Amino acid sequence: MPASPSSPWKTADDRLKEREIKREAVLLAAARAFNERGFHNTALEDVAADLKVTKPTIYYYGESKEALLAACYRRALDTLDDVTRQSEGDAADARTRLRVLIIAYGEAILSIYGRCLTRVPDNSLSPPLRQELRAIKRTVDDRIRRVLDDGARDGTLKPTDTKMTAFAIAGALNAAALWFEETGPSSAQQIGEHYADLFVAALQPA
Amino acid sequence: MPASPSSPWKTADDRLKEREIKREAVLLAAARAFNERGFHNTALEDVAADLKVTKPTIYYYGESKEALLAACYRRALDTLDDVTRQSEGDAADARTRLRVLIIAYGEAILSIYGRCLTRVPDNSLSPPLRQELRAIKRTVDDRIRRVLDDGARDGTLKPTDTKMTAFAIAGALNAAALWFEETGPSSAQQIGEHYADLFVAALQPA
Repeated sequence: MPASPSSPWKTADDRLKEREIKREAVLLAAARAFNERGFHNTALEDVAADLKVTKPTIYYYGESKEALLAACYRRALDTLDDVTRQSEGDAADARTRLRVLIIAYGEAILSIYGRCLTRVPDNSLSPPLRQELRAIKRTVDDRIRRVLDDGARDGTLKPTDTKMTAFAIAGALNAAALWFEETGPSSAQQIGEHYADLFVAALQPA
Repeated sequence: MPASPSSPWKTADDRLKEREIKREAVLLAAARAFNERGFHNTALEDVAADLKVTKPTIYYYGESKEALLAACYRRALDTLDDVTRQSEGDAADARTRLRVLIIAYGEAILSIYGRCLTRVPDNSLSPPLRQELRAIKRTVDDRIRRVLDDGARDGTLKPTDTKMTAFAIAGALNAAALWFEETGPSSAQQIGEHYADLFVAALQPA
């Protein structure tokens, strides 16, 4: 039974939502701190201070620094997984799909979690988790390769060493996440479009 | 006066050379360890064990872990500084210079010190040193931009947002240093050539 709008008690649903919002705030603050100071130079006390809460509160929502990093990585990889899966289901020609994919990948990798994925080395994660997350990265890379393969087949992209070219595309975008700042002169969208133009031109069929 | 070839005493010159060789071995072992295990997960004991010497020997040649990292960074940046300066002095057309530059940059960044530069975040270095090293990086980036500017002028490259394109080129090469292994299927030269082909095609004048 839902509480009436005027009840001072929260419903179970409200409490769950509130917990989610707080967890998200902890995760965002952790990602921001990792991106700016580096993982090893960030103490959970700093994250707590940023949020004006106590360290036990952070532990309650984030378990440990490693768990927070893992959660940041997972957010970024889930988004990359989504955008590359969407590209696979798209009926457009490969050149159009490559363009859309580069822009969407750019948006994902330039987000705060994407920046965390590229700026913080994964050797602080447990080996099994690292393996699992690297497997998602490989899936994402494979899907970029597949668009390039499709382009050679449908004639909208020049045949290329798809492995190396996929690495060049993902690499250039990942590298942009190392210097990108939300307050900088170019938006994530603009960077994505510029890189899309470059690589589509690089693969223009003769 | 040089010692005769049969003298069991080393000359001052020999001692200096020997010290250089040993320092180089320490630096290489440190770079290898940083690349494989990460900076924070590497203890100088590990580097000493790799070289079958004691930890004080490492301190004698490398001062501290931070000093070793700084020396690895400096090696990489000096090489990048060299190759981009050479490109500036080259009288060839901009497209040819871009091609040569990408291949030389690739060779430098895929070397063991270049891999260290890309794999180890610089937030373990002291802020003044970090500033100094970042200034070298900026010089290197500026020179890549200048080749692109020259190409728009001499007509051998399509006009482009040189800042973003220079970042895409350096970024793609830097990212390759994150996965490159000397025992892998492609050599540094092959990767450099592939990336050179891609970016030269991307900037083909209409």
